[in-house]
Amino acid sequence: MSGTVYGIGVGPGDPELITLKAKRLLETLPVLAWPAPLEGEGLARRIAAPFIPEGRTEIAIRFSFRPERDDTAAAYAKGARDIAAHLAVGQDVGVLCEGDPLLFGSFIHLLEHLPDCKVQVVPGIASPLAAAALTLRPLATLDEAFVILPATRPEAEIERVLSVVEAAAIIKIGRHRDTLARVLDRLGLIDDAVAVERAGMPDQAIRPFRDAVCLPYFSLVLVRRST
Amino acid sequence: MSGTVYGIGVGPGDPELITLKAKRLLETLPVLAWPAPLEGEGLARRIAAPFIPEGRTEIAIRFSFRPERDDTAAAYAKGARDIAAHLAVGQDVGVLCEGDPLLFGSFIHLLEHLPDCKVQVVPGIASPLAAAALTLRPLATLDEAFVILPATRPEAEIERVLSVVEAAAIIKIGRHRDTLARVLDRLGLIDDAVAVERAGMPDQAIRPFRDAVCLPYFSLVLVRRST
Repeated sequence: MSGTVYGIGVGPGDPELITLKAKRLLETLPVLAWPAPLEGEGLARRIAAPFIPEGRTEIAIRFSFRPERDDTAAAYAKGARDIAAHLAVGQDVGVLCEGDPLLFGSFIHLLEHLPDCKVQVVPGIASPLAAAALTLRPLATLDEAFVILPATRPEAEIERVLSVVEAAAIIKIGRHRDTLARVLDRLGLIDDAVAVERAGMPDQAIRPFRDAVCLPYFSLVLVRRST
Repeated sequence: MSGTVYGIGVGPGDPELITLKAKRLLETLPVLAWPAPLEGEGLARRIAAPFIPEGRTEIAIRFSFRPERDDTAAAYAKGARDIAAHLAVGQDVGVLCEGDPLLFGSFIHLLEHLPDCKVQVVPGIASPLAAAALTLRPLATLDEAFVILPATRPEAEIERVLSVVEAAAIIKIGRHRDTLARVLDRLGLIDDAVAVERAGMPDQAIRPFRDAVCLPYFSLVLVRRST
């Protein structure tokens, strides 16, 4: 007897950007797990809150979110053990994931600790899609190449990738903002680049990238070559 | 007095992958427009059908879908005129979009014909996300670069892009299947490549790309370098 683990994309922040399938599972699964900081409920739980019935069994998978992230593997391992205990008695478990579970999602790492489970994934609205909706700018069209690229890469690699595509969403900006600015300037892309902060959340904002000297963690930069 | 045009992403096929926001707009907007072939209702209308009340004013934007697509601009122009007539009398108009409106969506071209309108966009589940959910394979994680790349590009450009990223969803395969196979073979990616057909639809299927000699229009190929 064994349950199924569901990776449930809850989208970028607005509870109305949850899919009908995610809503149904949130309302019906007996156990829900979610990543969170050491205290409090975390973003995925906050997004899903309107759809979670009272009294549901919940598992918090807690991380310190320190830059060195040295507690990460231990947190996933413990979360996976807690989830596996429910699966073993035949209970299905939903894992809440910001955005989409399989696109830079922590669910990917959690799955590595649940190697023999039955798994299903419900896709969610990824933040680049929500950001584009806010700017009303196309992400890509016709035969353009569109890349989602973490700014944590070395400067030369960022430049190499951006130089061969027409459009990009650059994520994980943080302290790499000035590196990215240099690359975009060299490629002639900086004037059209738009910074989107907290796409899909109530305090979402868009600014020209040039004016966005300091960007919060939940921000990304959209660029597209003029055609 | 002028209405707003809403680009509504209806996702890849499964009506349960529509967002709550899209559902609300489908149920309440007075006018709905959708792309379609010369006869019949088209995929976006079929996906949204469970949520469209009877008697709603609907505008079909019809294309021949011939390879040369020489009727495309005229169809968008006519669709935009029909939509603008409703906006002018203060009616909001929803435009149904398969997947996401701003990621390779026909909504992008329609907007070019509606330059001075109030616009809002509701993001939708893009097909690469639905395809990944089906395969249970990560699209990308950590600092990987993930590209969405149309196979309609010249072979050398496909190779140049795929050689600098860790992961890709290759779309618009059709008659470019063998070109793509050559590129993936040269880059050592062909054995891990997976073909996903009609992701999110009832007859969805996944096959190793090597075995997928003939791929339908609604298919894509996922690749990711082994890490």
